Amino acid sequence: MSSREEVLRRVRDAIGGARGTHPPAPRGYARRLTEAEAATRADVLALFTERVAGHRAAVRHVSADELATAVAAALWGREAKQIVVPADLPFGWLAELDGVRALADTPALDLEALAAADGTVTGCAAAVAQTGTVVLDGGRAQGRRALTLVPGYHLCIVHADQIVGTVPEAVARLDPSRPLTWISGPSTVHDIGATRVDGVHGPRHLEVLVVED
Amino acid sequence: MSSREEVLRRVRDAIGGARGTHPPAPRGYARRLTEAEAATRADVLALFTERVAGHRAAVRHVSADELATAVAAALWGREAKQIVVPADLPFGWLAELDGVRALADTPALDLEALAAADGTVTGCAAAVAQTGTVVLDGGRAQGRRALTLVPGYHLCIVHADQIVGTVPEAVARLDPSRPLTWISGPSTVHDIGATRVDGVHGPRHLEVLVVED
Repeated sequence: MSSREEVLRRVRDAIGGARGTHPPAPRGYARRLTEAEAATRADVLALFTERVAGHRAAVRHVSADELATAVAAALWGREAKQIVVPADLPFGWLAELDGVRALADTPALDLEALAAADGTVTGCAAAVAQTGTVVLDGGRAQGRRALTLVPGYHLCIVHADQIVGTVPEAVARLDPSRPLTWISGPSTVHDIGATRVDGVHGPRHLEVLVVED
Repeated sequence: MSSREEVLRRVRDAIGGARGTHPPAPRGYARRLTEAEAATRADVLALFTERVAGHRAAVRHVSADELATAVAAALWGREAKQIVVPADLPFGWLAELDGVRALADTPALDLEALAAADGTVTGCAAAVAQTGTVVLDGGRAQGRRALTLVPGYHLCIVHADQIVGTVPEAVARLDPSRPLTWISGPSTVHDIGATRVDGVHGPRHLEVLVVED
């Protein structure tokens, strides 16, 4: 018996009869918000807003007609001069930019260009009220992962109908085969000496615009 | 019997037993291009190009990476200063504009603004090689009908995979409940004295960019 066969034999012995099967996972967790948490749709949106703000992210509600102006105002507020965006971002979202240059990520910008940008603007695939999370899946208006992880500022547009109550509800809406990025507030770690350090693994600043149609 | 009833009676008599039914329509027409017309996919694209050009429309093939530059070049070539676009036009299509102002049609621009624009840029829902036609259905990147009928210049982006051989093939792809606009070249009429007059019912100038991925 070769060493390879020996190793495989030990692995097979160790996993025994359970090979290829999984122990049942407990599914007793809450799949939906309770009445106390959110009785109405407006409560769900309010909870999302509260939880996003709790992650030290800025969050604002706008109407569809106000969106372009709100995007421009957010970028002016940060004195952004150059941003990077997915090529399929709806043009209307950036229609009011004045003095801010937007670079489309096609052909793909190099990492230096992403790092030099003052921020990025994207949509999302879904959002979770209970955890104040936006989820990106690389689909329409979201771009590839580097686009939202390298720049220091991420402005994320969330349509109200994309917001669900809980993580299980979001999972049910999403395609598990896509590259999912779950964003709960700006990037922050406490890895070293329990000291909070922001912006190491993603944007230091996150801003969310909720569009209510 | 009132005059209304009398008229309705005559109508019923006239349509008789055929009321609510339709005589069978002959369906013996060609549903697909013949081998002689287009043996390969490249032949279909070449036929589309030839037929669009035959309608006195400009047509050019570009790669996806060249699209933004080609759009800008087309607008610069017409000395366009201000254009109107659907709000959901992919941002990347206009990413290279410099000196051309793009107004998003949301909230809806008034007719004066549409008429004052130097042109419009849209996508399409399908295109037909045999007739050199682009079809708009008001869906993504196409906007409402007035957006493409009022301005005097229409730049239409057609992805190669949107081009089919014949009208029946296009019909099979389209949703008949949507507001379909079939565009075969610039608007032209011969209503009065058989004199050709351009641009009365739509753009006087049509330009098509075929994007080959």
